[in-house]
Amino acid sequence: MEFLKPYTALIENRLQSLPLPQKPSGLYDPQRYILGMGGKRIRPMLSLVSCGLCGVDMERAVPAALSVELIHNFTLLHDDIMDQADSRRGHETVHRRWDVASAILAGDGMFVQALLMLQDVPPGCDHKQMMNELLTGVNTVCEGQALDMEFENRQDVSLGEYLTMIEGKTGALLSTSMKLGGYSAGADEDQIRLLDQIGRSLGLAFQIQDDLLDVIADPSQFGKIPAGDIREGKKTFLMLTALEHCSVEQKKSILGYFQKRPLTVNQIDEIISIYRSTGTIEEAEKQIGSYYKRAESALDKFVDSNYKQDLSNLINYLKNREI
Amino acid sequence: MEFLKPYTALIENRLQSLPLPQKPSGLYDPQRYILGMGGKRIRPMLSLVSCGLCGVDMERAVPAALSVELIHNFTLLHDDIMDQADSRRGHETVHRRWDVASAILAGDGMFVQALLMLQDVPPGCDHKQMMNELLTGVNTVCEGQALDMEFENRQDVSLGEYLTMIEGKTGALLSTSMKLGGYSAGADEDQIRLLDQIGRSLGLAFQIQDDLLDVIADPSQFGKIPAGDIREGKKTFLMLTALEHCSVEQKKSILGYFQKRPLTVNQIDEIISIYRSTGTIEEAEKQIGSYYKRAESALDKFVDSNYKQDLSNLINYLKNREI
Repeated sequence: MEFLKPYTALIENRLQSLPLPQKPSGLYDPQRYILGMGGKRIRPMLSLVSCGLCGVDMERAVPAALSVELIHNFTLLHDDIMDQADSRRGHETVHRRWDVASAILAGDGMFVQALLMLQDVPPGCDHKQMMNELLTGVNTVCEGQALDMEFENRQDVSLGEYLTMIEGKTGALLSTSMKLGGYSAGADEDQIRLLDQIGRSLGLAFQIQDDLLDVIADPSQFGKIPAGDIREGKKTFLMLTALEHCSVEQKKSILGYFQKRPLTVNQIDEIISIYRSTGTIEEAEKQIGSYYKRAESALDKFVDSNYKQDLSNLINYLKNREI
Repeated sequence: MEFLKPYTALIENRLQSLPLPQKPSGLYDPQRYILGMGGKRIRPMLSLVSCGLCGVDMERAVPAALSVELIHNFTLLHDDIMDQADSRRGHETVHRRWDVASAILAGDGMFVQALLMLQDVPPGCDHKQMMNELLTGVNTVCEGQALDMEFENRQDVSLGEYLTMIEGKTGALLSTSMKLGGYSAGADEDQIRLLDQIGRSLGLAFQIQDDLLDVIADPSQFGKIPAGDIREGKKTFLMLTALEHCSVEQKKSILGYFQKRPLTVNQIDEIISIYRSTGTIEEAEKQIGSYYKRAESALDKFVDSNYKQDLSNLINYLKNREI
């Protein structure tokens, strides 16, 4: 991903010079720790490239870019507690290495740092509008997380509800990242609408792709337990699509398996064969393709630039990922 | 507290008409639940009265007042998890009634609501400056909480460090509440400095008073286990003052007791008698009086008004509280 380097180099450089105090170490050490874990930095890259798409040097979008990356890390700190995750990016999670109280507090503190970062938007930007965009974006992420938790205990989740949930959990912050980049460039309403469409579509495509890769990815490369989602009885795009298309008997037996998680290897194989016989795999591929297409059509409306080429490259890279 | 009624009536009325959506219920029900528990609403009252002190009708400070009350409730949601508290204001805490994940998420969501509320400050207010004040205030609260957690595992906490901790945990948000009220009124720098001094002093006075009441309050009225702080080996103003003034032997035995918490009734009695023999009780009373005095001197500098009289009444009420 050579084309990403100018963006990630700028982001890493600025993240490292964040003015986080040394003390109290209980508040700031976990913040430094999770930021030091790295990550793909997709969200800040989207802010920078969006600023460029609107005709302004990406440097102007640095505060917005850092802000969304800090927001993302704040949500990871809290999500890892909620999901009881032991590791992230090959490192112990903060609530394991420290404790739950420290991880809650570090997340709260990082949320504050993210918002303080947005205080530094360059002169001429509409600070209040950008703050509004960021806050409503984070609230939508919270709503998505609440739906995700609610779905665990419900057997009647519809595909539409699922799409609302992933649009909140993943799409909202990608869209916000792009719009804040646009606002940093003084983008007009049409441009903001296009950036929103790209971010939202990428989020949906990416998430359904995750659901699909869980089933079809090469286990030696995927880095997760294959079919882990089925094993846990998660309501994914594939599961909900299959439940809409399978026979009454198949539906009854799948919902029965959900009562006794984790599912056995035989039950997992049975479900994968239902995915195949009901055309669920093809339906997922079709949806992913259509969301990426939506993102590309919106991107097409911007004038040509290196930024446009870079985002096009990123979309191609994401489209073809196998892990 | 008849003089508080116009303030609390206004606050309760506006809190009840907060536009919190019904769904997802997992995000918003816990927020409604904790707001419905009531509470003294001291912070929003301080915002309203501060606006009035600066010569402007308190109505202008309603967004600021609601914002600080929502911030306070966000911190309660997360603090109750960190402290593993089972009840608050006679109700089950959110993490008990729902679960830890829901309480974390509801806190995050309420933090967002607090900041969205501040988007509604009246025209003419410096929104960016007010946002900065609120964010740095919340960060100081987080620093105070981190110090409080750190102190649990340290035997060498100084009185100065303790004062920094309570100034963060309690004083910062009281000061922020007052300053945001002032900013709502378009207060000048001198007025903001005075409001800061009042809020900060009230926070310190109130917290040291809490420490004192733990030891000397009438158990039938206090509503907590008497000497609960000593029992838990907490580093309070009294404990740290006593440790500075007692003999080497006494210090050694107190620090020994800390290793095996909770302390026995005999150990508690021994420590209370050390408080008395070292003049610690008097020292606490002196400090409380001096912080209230600081608040009163600053208040004195404002021109006479009903608002000024109301805040003076509140200070008197707090000064004389026995629970």
